[in-house]
Parts: sequence; C-alpha cells; structure tokens
Amino acid sequence: MAEGSERPQVDFRTEPSRYRHWRLSVDGRVATLAMDVSEDAGLSPGYELKLNSYDLGVDIELYDAVQRLRFEHPDVGAVVLTSAKERVFCAGANIRMLGRASHGWKVNFCKFTNETRNAIEEASAESGQAWVCAINGPCAGGGYELALACRHIVMADDGNTSVALPEVPLLAVLPGTGGLTRLVDKRRVRRDRADYFCTLEEGVKGKRAVEWNLVDEVVPRSKLEETARQRAGAFAAQGDRPVDGRGVAFTPLARTITGDRIAYRWVTCALDRRRGIAEITVAGPDAAPPADVDGAHAEGAAFWPLALARELDDLILHLRLNEEQIGLWALRTAGVADLVEAHDRFLDRHAGHWLIREIRLYLRRTLKRLDVTSRSIFALIEPGSCFAGTLLELALAADRSYMLAGAHEGGPATPATVRLTVANFGACPMPNGLSRLASRFLAEPGRVDDLKGRIGQDLDAEAAAEAGLVTFTPDDIDWDDEVRIALEARAAFSPDALTGMEASLRFAGPETLETKIFARLSAWQNWIFQRPNAVGDKGALQVYGSGQRAEFDRRRV
Amino acid sequence: MAEGSERPQVDFRTEPSRYRHWRLSVDGRVATLAMDVSEDAGLSPGYELKLNSYDLGVDIELYDAVQRLRFEHPDVGAVVLTSAKERVFCAGANIRMLGRASHGWKVNFCKFTNETRNAIEEASAESGQAWVCAINGPCAGGGYELALACRHIVMADDGNTSVALPEVPLLAVLPGTGGLTRLVDKRRVRRDRADYFCTLEEGVKGKRAVEWNLVDEVVPRSKLEETARQRAGAFAAQGDRPVDGRGVAFTPLARTITGDRIAYRWVTCALDRRRGIAEITVAGPDAAPPADVDGAHAEGAAFWPLALARELDDLILHLRLNEEQIGLWALRTAGVADLVEAHDRFLDRHAGHWLIREIRLYLRRTLKRLDVTSRSIFALIEPGSCFAGTLLELALAADRSYMLAGAHEGGPATPATVRLTVANFGACPMPNGLSRLASRFLAEPGRVDDLKGRIGQDLDAEAAAEAGLVTFTPDDIDWDDEVRIALEARAAFSPDALTGMEASLRFAGPETLETKIFARLSAWQNWIFQRPNAVGDKGALQVYGSGQRAEFDRRRV
Repeated sequence: MAEGSERPQVDFRTEPSRYRHWRLSVDGRVATLAMDVSEDAGLSPGYELKLNSYDLGVDIELYDAVQRLRFEHPDVGAVVLTSAKERVFCAGANIRMLGRASHGWKVNFCKFTNETRNAIEEASAESGQAWVCAINGPCAGGGYELALACRHIVMADDGNTSVALPEVPLLAVLPGTGGLTRLVDKRRVRRDRADYFCTLEEGVKGKRAVEWNLVDEVVPRSKLEETARQRAGAFAAQGDRPVDGRGVAFTPLARTITGDRIAYRWVTCALDRRRGIAEITVAGPDAAPPADVDGAHAEGAAFWPLALARELDDLILHLRLNEEQIGLWALRTAGVADLVEAHDRFLDRHAGHWLIREIRLYLRRTLKRLDVTSRSIFALIEPGSCFAGTLLELALAADRSYMLAGAHEGGPATPATVRLTVANFGACPMPNGLSRLASRFLAEPGRVDDLKGRIGQDLDAEAAAEAGLVTFTPDDIDWDDEVRIALEARAAFSPDALTGMEASLRFAGPETLETKIFARLSAWQNWIFQRPNAVGDKGALQVYGSGQRAEFDRRRV
Repeated sequence: MAEGSERPQVDFRTEPSRYRHWRLSVDGRVATLAMDVSEDAGLSPGYELKLNSYDLGVDIELYDAVQRLRFEHPDVGAVVLTSAKERVFCAGANIRMLGRASHGWKVNFCKFTNETRNAIEEASAESGQAWVCAINGPCAGGGYELALACRHIVMADDGNTSVALPEVPLLAVLPGTGGLTRLVDKRRVRRDRADYFCTLEEGVKGKRAVEWNLVDEVVPRSKLEETARQRAGAFAAQGDRPVDGRGVAFTPLARTITGDRIAYRWVTCALDRRRGIAEITVAGPDAAPPADVDGAHAEGAAFWPLALARELDDLILHLRLNEEQIGLWALRTAGVADLVEAHDRFLDRHAGHWLIREIRLYLRRTLKRLDVTSRSIFALIEPGSCFAGTLLELALAADRSYMLAGAHEGGPATPATVRLTVANFGACPMPNGLSRLASRFLAEPGRVDDLKGRIGQDLDAEAAAEAGLVTFTPDDIDWDDEVRIALEARAAFSPDALTGMEASLRFAGPETLETKIFARLSAWQNWIFQRPNAVGDKGALQVYGSGQRAEFDRRRV
C-alpha cells in the first residue's frame, strides 16, 4: 500500500493464467470469451459477484483479454462473447459494490469500463476481429451494454432470456456505460421505444427485441451456440486477419514503484505529493527501428512503440485510480527526435501489416485515454526532449504547453525543438474523430495542410509558436518562475471545476459515439451519482437489496 | 403565492415600461439595448446587483426585449448591446444570488439564460437582426457569454476594459451559459489559449484579445460607440428586414391561475399535485387562417400560431420554474386537424414575409424548449384531438405517445387520427438541427421522404403506429389502465435519473452548438453545482466575498 493512498492500490496488470472470471478459448479463427464470474473473488471485500455481475477486477481481466486477443492471436477473426453460467448472461455492474464505492471510484470505474467497450467496438471496426454476442440468459444493465458494444447480437428465444436496461426504475441511475447512447445512436432505436425500454425492469425478449433492433436476431436456445459460431465464422472469413500469423506475447510488464517514483523501461513518473503534480518523462527509442516487420516481430513486446503504449497505458490507469490527489500531470520527453521519426515512418510504411496496425491502434487508444483523463495536463518542452511525431501528440493532447526559447544557462547549448512527422496527420485521431492538429486548428483548417510541408523539420520555440504548436515560449530568464507559477496556480484551483472545464475545451468540433458517451452520458451519470435520490441514505442505489424502499425528493431541476 | 409552492412564483411576463434593468432605444435601422441593472431591484431579497451583475429578473427583461425587437420592430436590422454604466460592461451572474440559490434554481436559471442567448444568436443568423456587442468596461463571466452570443464583438482598447471567464479560478464553477462551448466551437479559439484564458481572473484585453479571436476588434474608447454603430448599420443594410414594416404589438398575455388550473386563450393546464402530473391541453384554431399576410398582421398577437407560441412558451417557463414537483407533462390537443393544417400551409406559403418568418422561428424556439425541458413528456391522442402538423410536433417531442385505437365507448364515434403537414418536414428543427421526424427515423432516413407522400392524410391508430409516429395504441378496453399505469409508473421513478435518461435519449444524431451547450456543458455544470468544492460550506461559490478562502477536496474523480 503506497504512501499517501487510503486504500490498497489496484494493479491493472494481469494474464490469462490468473483470470478468476473469464474463460478464453480459441478454436481456429474463432475465439470464445465466456464470462464466469467467481462470486467470492471481488476486488474488495463486502460484496458477492452474483449472477455474473462485475466489479473493476472483472473488467480488468476483460480488458486484458481484449488486448491479448488482438496481439497474441492474429489468426482470430471473430470473438464470441457469452456466459459460462447456466442460467444468466450478466446482471451488469455489481450494485453492492457501487453502493459502497466513493464518487471518484464510481466515475473511474465507469470510465475504464467505457474505454474497454470502445476497444471492443474498435476491434470489430478496425482490427478485423469482430465481436459476436451470444446472449444465453438474462442480460441486464452493464450486461446489455457489453452486448451493445458487439458487432452482432444473437439472443436465445426462451422464457428466461431478455435484454434490459433497468437502471432507471431499479437503481435511480443511468445505464452509464454507453447504454443510452448506443441504443439511440449506434443501434438507432426509435427514441420512444428506447424510452419505454429503459423504464422496464423486466426488459424485452423474443421477436420484439429484434423488431425494435435491441438485438440482431433471436434463435431457439438449442441453436444459440451454433448460430453465434456461424456468424463469427462468417465475420472471420470476411475479415483480413492473417491465417498463419504468429502472435506477439504480452510478456509481464515490468514496473517498479519505489516511494513516490514509478518506473518502467521507457516511462518514469515522479510524484510531488505536496504540490499534487506527477512529473512524467517518456523516453524516445534508443536505436533505429528494425529493417522490416519481421524484425519488429522479433522484438515483440520490447519493440519501442508497443512497449511505450503498454507502459503509458498502465501509468495512466494507475495514476487515475490510485493517485486521485495528483491533479496535474507534467509531461516531458527525453531522447532523439530522429529516432522517434524513424519509428513513425516505420509504422506508417507497414501500416497494412496486422501487427503494425495493432500497435498503431494501441497508441491511438492510449493517447485517447489522455484526452478523457480528468487531470490537467501540461507539456514541458526543454532541451534534450524529443517531442516529435507520436511523442508530439503528448504535447498536443496537453491542455497547454511551455517550450523553452533557446537553451538553459549552463545546460546543453542545443535549444529545444519540436518536430512534426507523418504520425501527426491522422494516425492518432482523438475521440472526436479528428487528428489533434485538426482539432487544434478548427479555425484554420488549411493550416494543417500547410504543416504537412514542414514534416521532419526541427522547429525551435519561435517557429513552433508561430506554427501554433505550443502555447508559451519563455526564455531561460523567465522559465523557472513562469512554469512554477503556472503549475502551482493550476494545482490550487478546484479539481471539479477543472474537470468540467477541460472536458469542455478539449473536444471542439464534431461529435462521435465516443465523445457523446464520455461527455453527455458520463456527465449526466456523474451528476446523478451525486444526487441524494441515488446515493443519499434513502437513495435507490443505497437501499437496493435491503428490503427498504427508496425515497425520492420529487423536485425536477 | 400558489398553493403547494414554497416561494413566490416568478412571472415571466413583462414589458418595456416595467423594465428596471435595461434601456431599449431605436434609431432608424439600429436599436441599442443598454444594460443598466438596478442594484436594489433583485428578484429576491438578500443580494445587490452590483456592477451590472444579473439575476433571473434581469434576464427575463432581456428575453422580453429580444422578443419585442423581433416582432415589434421589423425595421430594426441590428442591435447594439452595450452597458449604460460608466465603468463596467457586465460582471456576469450575481454570485450572492447563486450562492443562496437552490440547486434546481441554479439549473433552471442557467437553462433560461442559455435559451435567451440562443435566441440572440438565432436573431443574427435567421431573422436579419444582427447583434453587435460594444464592450465598454470589464466584461466578465456571464457578461462575456452575452458578448459571445453576438455576431460581432467590438471592445474598447483602454486600461479598464477586458474580457474574462473567471469562473474556474474565482468561483470553482464553469462559465456554464455557453461560454466554454462558444469559445472553442463558435469562435474556435485554440484549445490551449482557451485553457489559459479560462484560468485568468483578470482576463485579456487589447490586441491579444483580437489575436486570440476572443473579440473581433478593439478600438479606442472614444471610437467605440461610433464603431459599433457603423458595424450595426452595415449589418442592417445587408440584412433583409423590411424598411417600412409595421410591427406586431405584444399585447399583455392573458393568463389566469385559479387553484391548480392555469388558463390562457388556447392553452390550459390542470395540475394534479398528488400524482405530480400536469395535464396540458392545446386548442387548435377555431377558424381558417386569413386570406393573406395583411389579415394575419391585422390579427396581430391574436393570430393563432403566434398566440399559441406565446402561451405555450409562458406555460413551459412557468411550470419549469414554479412547479418543480410536477415531473410529468401529459399533452393533449383539441380541435380540428383541417384548421391546423390550413394554418401550417399559410405559414409555409408566406415563409418569406418577415412576420411569418418570426412566427415560425418563435414556434421553433418554443418547441425546442420542450426538447430541453427536464420533465417527462407523454402525448395522449384521443378522439377530438388535432395532432396535425405543428401540433403533431408536440407528440413527436414527447418521450412517448399513447393513441387510442378506435373510439371510447359512449364517446364520439370518430376515432382519433393524426396528420402530417408541411410543418413536420423541416420547419421546426430540434436543437440538433434535424426535424423531429428525421431524429425519430435515424435508422431509416428514407422513411421521412416516404411520409411526405402522406401529408394531409388522417392516420388512425393502426396507420400511425405502422408509420412509426406513435408509440402505443391501446383500444378502449385497455386505454384507461394502460395510460394510468404508465403515468403512475413514470411519476414514481427518480426525477434525476429520468432527467439524465431523457436528455440522453432525446438527442440522437448530429450535435450542434446548442446540443453541446445543453448536454455536455450544462451536464458538467450541474455536476459541479452539486460538488462540495463549489457549494459546500467551504466551497468557493459559498465563501465568495466573505473574506474566507475556499477549501477544496483535492481528489480528482
């Protein structure tokens, strides 16, 4: 248990041999991921995970499975998601767990589960790995939200099996893991039907579920497995995953936490608890990329872009959940821009190869986690840094950036520069579907095209500011004071106001399913998670299962 | 003070002779609306409206002025918005007022002020009445949000005048009246600059304000009035408002409240406080429309579509603010579909005339208020009703609808029907920019075109259900029970969960500035308005002005 934290830290690292809640099996082109939650293996004491209900621990394993399916199983072109229990598919997030959880825990839990469902959706859409949901028993709340993230939903047509979003009538909260949004925006269920459906504790089964597009098909219970398998086989056959690919093993991720220092191979983080700041440094590669994809494959999980994605991913998840009081992340890089650019070019050149595609998508997902992280993010650009291409995305994801004009007195004489590479022009779209450059220059779309002409150039502070890539460019005389004051001022503001402000300013421009889920839906859910009607002593979430009736303040706001 | 309410009711009806806070003057094609808030004329006791800060009372007058400028001043092609105070433009919403306000009051206040700013924006964009803001002194928070709603912003270049959004650093809340969204989405201010700007108590002045696109131009103080007037004159000259139009006087809106009954000429409302239901009935016109626009003009405020808009508008505002415990609105209509359709055709035929355009825009705004109202809305369609065209929009705006199949035993023999008219195909877009039909049939866009072929047909329950226009069609045997159970079940759910659910399900499809403001921004602001860091005993909003420092729980969520 780390210094300064109030509860045991959660480790997001796991592997199939340690799964308690899922069974993963692969049969040729089709994998089956069966939910089989151990009632007594909750992440914290005090609740039982009955009826395939889940807590964060269950979802951490799910996330691990999603990742490994993509990297370790290149031959798998479709995944059947189902339940290993006899009489239930999934009852959703565990209510007792939610009832006991702090506000911050609830919000973080929902954010992570949302990101995992987005990754499932991305696997179907971009990775040639289509998810098919086989619903074999009651499928409620978060269970149905899991189904909604799949490309195709087959449901058993029997008296026992239905889909439901009973959160509003039962718990006075929302189906907040994408459910409401996917219902009307992805499946385009008519709004009045969606309204009715979301107020039905018992849900909808059989033909009506198909008619209303809540599921894609219903089949007799006896045909469910076969049908799901057929659909999955068909998707796999249409997909472009290699039939004879060798996977890349996700070897255990090495991390050491020593006092307030967290270190991976390429990423390090020093926590300044007094000031509430995490000083994060990302190292660029220390060598040129391999000659070809085989070389990258041979490096496997040690290949710099993949290692970077894994380390940054883990650090983001760790800090979000385990270090709530660290409100400001200061991002630095260290290394050689040429080597970063060489890797970016390598990834771009081989983008059609399944492994490189997966690495690019993983970098994209990891950077997206930054976009939806409720922490202030500042980039600090100094001599010796390598804010180029993929790593420049860190500065573009930041709420603002400070770049030293010139050099520090007594330091290296070479001034700080930043560099655009091919990776900045569409490889890593934000949740709104635009590149970070396009989001940044909404006012001048032509500027993005102009900047393409500057790929590969080292831009010093003046040029970077003129190009609009950095916010402030103090010189050595002002640097220390200006940066210190900015960090301290930021750390002094209300964490909640900053969260709302950052969530509003980061996503100008178009909206997508993802931005709607993280903004509209999550913001409303977070509001409800504060309301006495849900979380007060007589609130529905608190009294659920106690035999007491919830009591509501009837005022609408 | 009405029975059952806990505070004096607020009346949204006013007129220029009663204004306490604004001075409206018209000089040819350009009107000037000068803010001159009376410190001691707050809507409630307990705070002083210093520095042109505003409360709901100030905004009710602003809304009235916006409306009258559009209807009573057809010749006005531009409006200069400025301050009549010597040393301040506007300090934003009054903090003491906000600090004392209940959560529901805050939310309602922000919703109404947002709608008024949207109406200002709509006047510039659609009504040929461009708003020009002349900033003559510090312009902070809600003051700057008012400026942001204008088409053009001119600011004095002096030591005293700046624009600022100091909510986050000063009050630990958001600039929640569109500020954050308009900054990055309308004015497309670069996100890192917006981030910095929103953390600056003192704001930005002079050239930098122009460079960052916070304002359109700065001019010496001595030239401000002249410049604003010139810009306004140019907009007016480009615009299409008639030079010799006669206005339509907004005669006092007749309303009687007797016990739990609220009655206007065409709209009535019976409150069932025990069940928490408002039974609203809208009457269709009782005669054919006039032969031409002159006839409509002669009817003035009594012309049915205009009277309808005004009455419904007032009722919505009244119920939202003064009847918080009434969580469900049941909408009925009464009248003759032929007459509604005749009016819709009249409005469509004369859409190019300034007055008819205004009436159509007003109907649109009023229906949009329904879309963003945090009440459940059910439409009940029975024999004798006239859910046709504009009035069918009420049913399409509802969360769901019940339509009687056939007739009631012992009632009129003619069954209930609904009818599409030209008004259902784009005249009244929702905040997302789509017609209610297009939003409804996102899954089958072709269906909207097909339905055009059915304009003018009376659709009985079976046909309406088949066309997807209504949700449920019980017959007389089931009607009473089914409707009663649906109403009672709805009334029993958590008001907050319903608010979040409805806000999520009503807006599938594209997003606009408006939907972003009402969803993302307002949802975050509402969340923050619940957080101890803002509203707790040591919260920034509570201690503001007391000399105490706010104390924050530093955990991020």
